[in-house]
Amino acid sequence: MNAQKYVAEAIGTFWLTFAGCGSAVIAAGFPQVGIGLLGVALAFGLSVVTMAYAIGHISGCHLNPAVTVGLAAGGRFPAGQILPYVVAQVIGAVVASAVLYVIASGTAGFDLAKGFASNGYGEHSPGHYNMVVCFITEVVMTMMFLFIIMGSTHGKAPAGFAPLAIGLALVMIHLVSIPVTNTSVNPARSTGPALFVGGWALAQLWMFWVAPLIGGVLGGVIYRWLSADPTGVVEGR
Amino acid sequence: MNAQKYVAEAIGTFWLTFAGCGSAVIAAGFPQVGIGLLGVALAFGLSVVTMAYAIGHISGCHLNPAVTVGLAAGGRFPAGQILPYVVAQVIGAVVASAVLYVIASGTAGFDLAKGFASNGYGEHSPGHYNMVVCFITEVVMTMMFLFIIMGSTHGKAPAGFAPLAIGLALVMIHLVSIPVTNTSVNPARSTGPALFVGGWALAQLWMFWVAPLIGGVLGGVIYRWLSADPTGVVEGR
Amino acid sequence: MNAQKYVAEAIGTFWLTFAGCGSAVIAAGFPQVGIGLLGVALAFGLSVVTMAYAIGHISGCHLNPAVTVGLAAGGRFPAGQILPYVVAQVIGAVVASAVLYVIASGTAGFDLAKGFASNGYGEHSPGHYNMVVCFITEVVMTMMFLFIIMGSTHGKAPAGFAPLAIGLALVMIHLVSIPVTNTSVNPARSTGPALFVGGWALAQLWMFWVAPLIGGVLGGVIYRWLSADPTGVVEGR
Amino acid sequence: MNAQKYVAEAIGTFWLTFAGCGSAVIAAGFPQVGIGLLGVALAFGLSVVTMAYAIGHISGCHLNPAVTVGLAAGGRFPAGQILPYVVAQVIGAVVASAVLYVIASGTAGFDLAKGFASNGYGEHSPGHYNMVVCFITEVVMTMMFLFIIMGSTHGKAPAGFAPLAIGLALVMIHLVSIPVTNTSVNPARSTGPALFVGGWALAQLWMFWVAPLIGGVLGGVIYRWLSADPTGVVEGR
Repeated sequence: MNAQKYVAEAIGTFWLTFAGCGSAVIAAGFPQVGIGLLGVALAFGLSVVTMAYAIGHISGCHLNPAVTVGLAAGGRFPAGQILPYVVAQVIGAVVASAVLYVIASGTAGFDLAKGFASNGYGEHSPGHYNMVVCFITEVVMTMMFLFIIMGSTHGKAPAGFAPLAIGLALVMIHLVSIPVTNTSVNPARSTGPALFVGGWALAQLWMFWVAPLIGGVLGGVIYRWLSADPTGVVEGR
Repeated sequence: MNAQKYVAEAIGTFWLTFAGCGSAVIAAGFPQVGIGLLGVALAFGLSVVTMAYAIGHISGCHLNPAVTVGLAAGGRFPAGQILPYVVAQVIGAVVASAVLYVIASGTAGFDLAKGFASNGYGEHSPGHYNMVVCFITEVVMTMMFLFIIMGSTHGKAPAGFAPLAIGLALVMIHLVSIPVTNTSVNPARSTGPALFVGGWALAQLWMFWVAPLIGGVLGGVIYRWLSADPTGVVEGR
Repeated sequence: MNAQKYVAEAIGTFWLTFAGCGSAVIAAGFPQVGIGLLGVALAFGLSVVTMAYAIGHISGCHLNPAVTVGLAAGGRFPAGQILPYVVAQVIGAVVASAVLYVIASGTAGFDLAKGFASNGYGEHSPGHYNMVVCFITEVVMTMMFLFIIMGSTHGKAPAGFAPLAIGLALVMIHLVSIPVTNTSVNPARSTGPALFVGGWALAQLWMFWVAPLIGGVLGGVIYRWLSADPTGVVEGR
Repeated sequence: MNAQKYVAEAIGTFWLTFAGCGSAVIAAGFPQVGIGLLGVALAFGLSVVTMAYAIGHISGCHLNPAVTVGLAAGGRFPAGQILPYVVAQVIGAVVASAVLYVIASGTAGFDLAKGFASNGYGEHSPGHYNMVVCFITEVVMTMMFLFIIMGSTHGKAPAGFAPLAIGLALVMIHLVSIPVTNTSVNPARSTGPALFVGGWALAQLWMFWVAPLIGGVLGGVIYRWLSADPTGVVEGR
């Protein structure tokens, strides 16, 4: 039933945003023993590994508007389902940010002005990368992400391993690009924290919708051309 | 035979508590090259990965009263077996803490007053998070943990991967929440160290029974409703 | 079709070089929370895990001239395909370095003179290891890499796990040898950054072609002799 | 043929000792970006993951006298093959230490007196743990290691995942116990570096034969009793 799929996407995107952003806000910079960017990269990636095994057989476990749109561009997902999937994902991410806000604000050192794991460019890029290269980074990373999603869920790929491949790809993407944009490749994940931080985060949010969607479509289309075999299935794997 | 299951649960929970808490007490803050919270998160999670492959076919490898109760709430475990499972888990965790105490106290720097990996809230939260958000954190984390356990052991999920999904979920949970409560989501794991530390650790132990059990039941019930198919089996996978 | 294989190899080697070198250039030394050599090791290795699941069924996912030549020496790959595979791999690595250059230069602190993740020996070895031991290290590491590739893709090895075994072997190799040569074991990955750095990096590039190719051939031949069964297949697994 | 098995065990133990000890000697304490104990733990564990997929179908991939003896005690390995397996493992470890010595001594900072990754107790324990608790630690860790090996290779465990479970168990063991004994659980791995360091390392080597062998036998026997089904096979999985 479709309602089950939408609820699964909302819960899964809740998990990705809550755990990924939560690891950044709560644990990355903990004194002496903090998990650092490596720990944050693992948290984001493992959220996909774990949810893909848990709900992949229900909704396909996209958890990301760029994935949903990219899979549609790649011929693996019906265009008519894009809107409800994206709405469910954004709801999940916003609820995640709300719960994270409640928890993170339960100690003295919390300050929304530290960014609350929002994505940004220019002066709001963690490493102060300029707008153009931030845009390029998000496009390239999301393109490669969709390429790997399309490939690892192809009918000829080893069955059952796609969640690992996809989640570990998200780990890698974060290992490289957190200093650039704080890493989005996922418009829903970006929208959640931006709503709480407001101001610059909302003003820069457009990039984290536009660039990942462009990248996602490119990745889906390139893999579809490369494999020349649109019959692989993403759901039910 | 049931006795084999109980022994397996005790040994498995011994491993989770001994290695998870042991990594925290012995190795997390080792000068210069300590493993930090990231290493502790991996130790807890990998204890479940490794034991689930070793004893999953014997007892289901719960290692956690909240998992046992949550699976029962989700329709995957007989209610009549809850008590002996929980007793075995607590015995395993207490023995683990005893062995860890012997080992850890074999060097000059050891001091029970550093916490011995006990869980806590308020002034005993590693990051001084208040009681309410500690409670919320434990409920949400255990709820998501059970959701992933229910999903990845569902009959439609890829066979054989559930131990990875479940163990990596525990890694993620620790990556986020060690600074909040030192991360429990497991009443047995909390009980072991608390018995040795006594005082505040015993006084706060109630939370690490109540919150994980509530979360576990919620996760089991939510996934059961979502999948609307209670026939998936957790044992024998 | 062969053209698809070459494009797949180019894209895959793009990913390995872009993400591996990118993690080193952009994120390894990020203040306070940088990913360090452990994060770089994971980025290189996970690039192989992810791509092997995505394109292993298209091209075999070598991403590395030493792998292509070593598999040919081991009787698993047709000699007539070596040249186009290697050309595609080098093109992918050079494009990756170009894109990485554009992105990395988009912030103030960037300086090609820091090495841009080039491989080197002697005074350009990160830990100042002399030329002879750098050569030995690259030979031994590539030999063991091919040994593991040959073994994990053998017909008697568990199906579907080879991408994990191979990618994690690359993680290990980096965990040991980044201080020695910055770790190549892959002539294509070395060529990309060297073209941008020029000077010493180009002058030392010969070693990162010669040593990995020698090691790759040794590994392929040794495993072939050990298994005494050249019928295992590397592609299509 | 048996000769192939012995060569495979020697090469595999070479890899475990070379990469595990190599990561500790070369990369653990590299300035600013060193891999730390977490990286060393991963290197040791991944050596088993990678070799188990590469040679598990040839020799069973023990790489460790305590594993060979423990599996024999557990009814999974013929007693008559113990001696040649152990000899092959020790040869592999000694050659690994020789190669590592050549490489590591190729830079100015090298000093055998830093320990060369030898195992030790008392004043030679990294964290100065006393002899008794070091002995207990090695027994308990090896016992649990064999328990997991026996369980994950049991006929009812998911096929193909045992190398992951076993290698990740070795990661965990190192995450806890490097500060105690520098972690052995493997007499061959201990013998290699001790021959080069001599003196105290040779004088303390007895413990890293006796304690792991006791632990290995205990683990094999306990699991055999628990499963009450000695027909599971370790080789050929």
